[in-house]
Amino acid sequence: MSIYDEALKFHEDVKGKIEVISRVEVSNSKELSLAYTPGVAQPCIEIHKDPDKAYKYTRKWNTIAVISDGSAVLGLGDIGPLASLPVMEGKCVLFKKFADVDAFPIVIDSKDVDEIVETIVKISKSFGGINLEDISAPRCFEIEEKLKERLDIPVFHDDQHGTAIVTLAALKNALKIVGKKIENIKIIVNGAGAAGTAITKLLLKAGAKNIIVCDKKGVLDPEHNLDKYKLELSKITNPNKEKGLLKDVIKGADVFIGVSAPYVLTKDMVKSMNKDAIVFAMANPTPEIFPDEAKEAGARIIGTGRSDFENQINNVLAFPGVFRGALDARAKKITDDMKLAAAEAIANFVKEDELNENYIIPKAFNLEVQKKVAEAVYKAAIK
Amino acid sequence: MSIYDEALKFHEDVKGKIEVISRVEVSNSKELSLAYTPGVAQPCIEIHKDPDKAYKYTRKWNTIAVISDGSAVLGLGDIGPLASLPVMEGKCVLFKKFADVDAFPIVIDSKDVDEIVETIVKISKSFGGINLEDISAPRCFEIEEKLKERLDIPVFHDDQHGTAIVTLAALKNALKIVGKKIENIKIIVNGAGAAGTAITKLLLKAGAKNIIVCDKKGVLDPEHNLDKYKLELSKITNPNKEKGLLKDVIKGADVFIGVSAPYVLTKDMVKSMNKDAIVFAMANPTPEIFPDEAKEAGARIIGTGRSDFENQINNVLAFPGVFRGALDARAKKITDDMKLAAAEAIANFVKEDELNENYIIPKAFNLEVQKKVAEAVYKAAIK
Repeated sequence: MSIYDEALKFHEDVKGKIEVISRVEVSNSKELSLAYTPGVAQPCIEIHKDPDKAYKYTRKWNTIAVISDGSAVLGLGDIGPLASLPVMEGKCVLFKKFADVDAFPIVIDSKDVDEIVETIVKISKSFGGINLEDISAPRCFEIEEKLKERLDIPVFHDDQHGTAIVTLAALKNALKIVGKKIENIKIIVNGAGAAGTAITKLLLKAGAKNIIVCDKKGVLDPEHNLDKYKLELSKITNPNKEKGLLKDVIKGADVFIGVSAPYVLTKDMVKSMNKDAIVFAMANPTPEIFPDEAKEAGARIIGTGRSDFENQINNVLAFPGVFRGALDARAKKITDDMKLAAAEAIANFVKEDELNENYIIPKAFNLEVQKKVAEAVYKAAIK
Repeated sequence: MSIYDEALKFHEDVKGKIEVISRVEVSNSKELSLAYTPGVAQPCIEIHKDPDKAYKYTRKWNTIAVISDGSAVLGLGDIGPLASLPVMEGKCVLFKKFADVDAFPIVIDSKDVDEIVETIVKISKSFGGINLEDISAPRCFEIEEKLKERLDIPVFHDDQHGTAIVTLAALKNALKIVGKKIENIKIIVNGAGAAGTAITKLLLKAGAKNIIVCDKKGVLDPEHNLDKYKLELSKITNPNKEKGLLKDVIKGADVFIGVSAPYVLTKDMVKSMNKDAIVFAMANPTPEIFPDEAKEAGARIIGTGRSDFENQINNVLAFPGVFRGALDARAKKITDDMKLAAAEAIANFVKEDELNENYIIPKAFNLEVQKKVAEAVYKAAIK
């Protein structure tokens, strides 16, 4: 049976990957009077007097919504809210398994930015945080910005920031191996959507000076007809005003970060990169270049998004711990400092004597990573 | 420790009464590839082709939202969405414990009917049903009506229909004891809010001919300045055009159903009722008249909403089983026939040889009741 048939059978058999359970007994009048009427009136009164007490008397403190409009689901594109539910449930599973966060899938039946924002704001009191998922760019930027302005709970678009955190972590360790500093290297980010934008911004925060972002049309050029977000990105990158296509600007680059499309990085392009080239080809499931080809072309360190190759750059290393830390700290926002701390924690999880070309980032299934990430995010939040 | 202090401590200790858990393992790459990428793409594709498959490949089939705006919470009134969360969580607990329905609390930060409706419509794809809760009248009627028009999943306002179903069940059995028929009796419904309105309509469906509805100002009179919903109610009730206050029209009544306020039914009023009077004094926690007083005044059968008296007329007998049956049948609506079937199932659960003045309705903690309700609702839905 193929993985696809197997996954279908798996989903049918399990009858839903998540479940809402009761944490209390209600098998007699006494228990009912505590968990429900008349006793339940008292926490209601207390929360009415002091809204903060919702964190004390309800599950809000540990509960987040995993929210999508189904507009950019995996590699499937705009399949709509209902069809995105299996992914959102899967994400909720990961939140629970990796960081004991209660996550509930909410799919929104609208593609309008303001409608989506209004809907989320109106239901937000039920939650301690909002994880946005699989929303297409550039709408995802606007939705996230507006929500951050209006909500006092953390909002995190995982496709952006989860990817950025894990990419930065992998890059930090790769640079240790090749003995280069982030300040001195030339980085190509190929893909200017949600992930590419967030990666670029976080790398800049982490000290990178020379990043060039390309989309399908080549280097982002402020003179082209760019949307608001790409225009902003073009202004904070490409300090040497290089022009052209990927094949042109990749010459002499130290790092290639692909969050774009299958096969767009050729062996010739890799050959044109600087010595000790680092190639993160993260298009899923088919990367920008396969690891064996990149290696043949001279790349020293290669990462992908896939679990069947070494150096899997997988969001699951970040998002559960990020929310665990943010919830524990009752953070109102997820700041750049929290993201940088998370990346540092993931990178540092790989011990110096274990670090090598094929092990720059921890394995996804190591729950200890999440604990370190949560701790780091918690500390950064408290500060 | 008072029940209130105890309830506060209980809520603090339990750290939330519900929890979202994973139903699947993801402790290795194989499991992850089934529950998440790349396998999860396949159910997404299938649902995109055929939306019905969401019931097969996700938890939608068993998941409902318990939704409130916090405008009419218990006896506390309009305490807002956040402060209503403990009640909504409690309701979710009951859904799970009594009928294995996954219920998740969504509190909505708006008092505007259309905003509430839009919000619910936009998030509805995540759910197999919507339970409305503690929304003030007459907004609750409009919200429910509009949602029923727009959604293809069952919508049920428990304060209305749950109460109506259980009241009808209790009345059926009480009438068996006193040997009267619903067609021939005079019924006073005191309270014209959510519960009073729904009770009246369901009793009419069940065959009642002479119901008089009173609010604080006495009998609903079409010549008074009534809102749309009370006006409609006034037109389908009070066939003999009686006028006056509760104390006037209760004379000669066979049944008093109170969903109103403490102490509004006096002993003198009960004395003025017909022989074998039935008094359901369901104001909570302080009833319209206490059972001992009603008894002294000549009432033969007395029910309240409280667990510390006989004949507790408790919604929990209805709502879990109603949704269990509706979800199992994939019903698109909860129809009057389904409500009547639920009431009949609850009434019939009390065996003839057990039926007496102090046992007209099953105990709330008997899970077998829910099974019967679910079966009855399922059958009515399939029809």
